[in-house]
Formats: sequence, structure tokens, C-alpha cells
Amino acid sequence: MTTDTAAPAPAHEMFETSEETTKASSRDRLLDTAADLCYRQGLRVPTDTLCKAAGISKRSMYKLFDSKDAVLAAALERSAPGATAHLLPPDDCELGPRARMLYVFERLEEAADAPNYRGCPYTSAQVELKDPAHPASVVAARAKRQLLDFFRAEAAQAGAIDPGLLARQLTVVYDGASTRAGIGADCLRGLAVTTASALIDVAGIVA
Amino acid sequence: MTTDTAAPAPAHEMFETSEETTKASSRDRLLDTAADLCYRQGLRVPTDTLCKAAGISKRSMYKLFDSKDAVLAAALERSAPGATAHLLPPDDCELGPRARMLYVFERLEEAADAPNYRGCPYTSAQVELKDPAHPASVVAARAKRQLLDFFRAEAAQAGAIDPGLLARQLTVVYDGASTRAGIGADCLRGLAVTTASALIDVAGIVA
Repeated sequence: MTTDTAAPAPAHEMFETSEETTKASSRDRLLDTAADLCYRQGLRVPTDTLCKAAGISKRSMYKLFDSKDAVLAAALERSAPGATAHLLPPDDCELGPRARMLYVFERLEEAADAPNYRGCPYTSAQVELKDPAHPASVVAARAKRQLLDFFRAEAAQAGAIDPGLLARQLTVVYDGASTRAGIGADCLRGLAVTTASALIDVAGIVA
Repeated sequence: MTTDTAAPAPAHEMFETSEETTKASSRDRLLDTAADLCYRQGLRVPTDTLCKAAGISKRSMYKLFDSKDAVLAAALERSAPGATAHLLPPDDCELGPRARMLYVFERLEEAADAPNYRGCPYTSAQVELKDPAHPASVVAARAKRQLLDFFRAEAAQAGAIDPGLLARQLTVVYDGASTRAGIGADCLRGLAVTTASALIDVAGIVA
């Protein structure tokens, strides 16, 4: 699956550029609209609604993608690198492994404070689709796997008693806290950080 | 006039009784089907599909309920007492507060082991609907509130440092673990119990 077409085209491709640019801009607009609408209203948003909101015809959509399922998958794929970059600490930051793990929960609590927060888009997509084989579920699962892998690597680096267990526990807390904030059942305000911190302590990692 | 009924209804009620019984059985069948279909396929299941699966006409459905939303709410309402009774320890059990809290996570892990497990139906409904004011979200939120209240009461009984905090943490673990098991991201097998147990320890509750 392709993701971005933003790289500049060489001069000899200039003739193609105009049509390609239009295509790329329709594609980007469709995917950004799909990501936004699905996050706010759910992935079962009708194709008509989606196309209308993106300002493109259904015919154009089906020129770009084989199916609405493929649009959903591409929309999640397009948003994932940015979401991951925001959630995980930068590689060159000065934080130790414990603070790097807690960094994720601090970002979660900040995000959850927004009035339009609806939880983790990747977990929500999987909950809604109820089909691990759906192309969008596959993309969503891959995005969440990155979080699990990050926690496991940091837990190992920090000398956790059982890095695999701590990584699974922190991912459970991440998904539970983001879900509960997303449905309006809890406002977090320190809950995710406190809970993650307690589990990091229990795993034998010192401050 | 019949003469062989063991508990004869007054003659003037004979017609009503029969119609009421049919209505009740259609209603129950519709709600059980809705609960099952929505759990497996999601709450956006089309009305036609739902009626067909329940073996009733759309006309009959709209005689029983004002809207499909009302069917969804009633389906969750109908399943909630049984689900709660299964999840929470019986009032007359011999367990102490700590074991009573862990009892919930043991039931969760048993449930999550089933191949058709799709997570907590009440949390999933809220994630799917993305609207806390939807009648089914209101019912689902009420069901989950019972779990939070149970944890808070047990945590207080057990002398937790901060019963409200522990209750929120355990509910986060419950929702995170059930969600991750439901989407096939984790098989649990002790994860929920171990995590809940660690947080109960941190809250100062002894075994």
C-alpha cells in the first residue's frame, strides 16, 4: 500500500505532474476526510457521506481505491506515522527509559483533555470492525504493535524483571485509559501516568 | 368456550393473553438476536438484517419499539443483569475484598478465552456509537458504572489508600484487557489478574 506522494517530481515528468498532482491532492483530501469522519462518527460512515465531505465523486474514489475498505486502511496508514511520532519520545531526547515510557502516558492525557477526543483511532477501528482480517484492522494492529514493541524495548533497557509482561501491562493501561476517556467515562487527569508508574515500579525499575 | 385449561383465563382476556404472549416472545427474540448480532458484527448492523435474523417483520419491530436505537438500548438493558451477575462475586460468597476484586478479572480471563470473544459489550457499544447521549450508550455506561462502584466499595472495605483511585485503575485494566482480548491483540492468560493484583498491592491492601 502506498502512503505519500509528496516528493517532488523530476523535470522530465512535468507533463504527468499536473494530472498526478490533482490525483494526489484528491487522494490526500479523501484520506484526511476519511480519517477525520471515521474518528468522529465511526468507520461505518456511508460512502456517499464520505465522498460528499471530501468533495469528490464516488467514481473518483473508485478510481483511486478498489473499495471503501481500502480507503479506510489507507486513511489509518497515512495518519499512523504522525500519531506515533507524537506519542513516542524523540530518539535524541535526554530522558531515561522510565521517563520515556511515561512520556507516552503524558501525551495520552494531554490528548484526552481535548473535547473531541474519542480514544485511540487504531484500537477503536479494531473494536468497530470486529474482524482482524479487515485491511483497516491489519493497519491498526500494526500501529499498535509499534507501541507494544516500544514499551518492551524500553522495559528491557531499564532492566525490568519481565519486559514482555510490563509491555503488555502498559499497553493494557494505554488502551483502557484511552478507551475510557474516549467514551467519556473518565477524564484521566493523572490516572494513566499514575497507573503506568505503579506498574513500572512493580516491574523493579527505579526512578 | 374451553373447559380443559388448568388455570383458565377469564373469557374476556383470552384474546389478549394470546396476543401478549406472542408479543413478549417476539420482543425477547428480537432483543436476544440484537444483542448477539451487535456483539459479533457491531451496532451498525442494518435493521433489515436484524429483523430477518430475529424472524420478525420490520413492521412488527416498529410496533414493539419506536426506533432501532431503542431496540439496541433494550437489548443491552436485557443482557446487563445476567452479565453483572456472572462477573461479580455472589453476595454470600466467603471471599475477602481482595479476592472479590480479583474474581472479576478471573471471570474476564475465562470469557476472553472463548474463540468468539469480542470484548466487553457495553464498552464496545460506547466506542462504536461515539455518542454518550445515544440511548444504548446511556444503558452501557450505567452497566459499567456498576463495575466501578463495585470496585470502589470493595477497595474501601479492604482499606485501600485511595479507594476511588484504585477503582478507576481496576476499571481501566478491565476495559484495556477486555478490549485487547476482544480485538485479538492479547490472549490475557493471567495478564488481567496479575495487573489488577499488582495495583491492589500498591493501594496498600494485603493478601
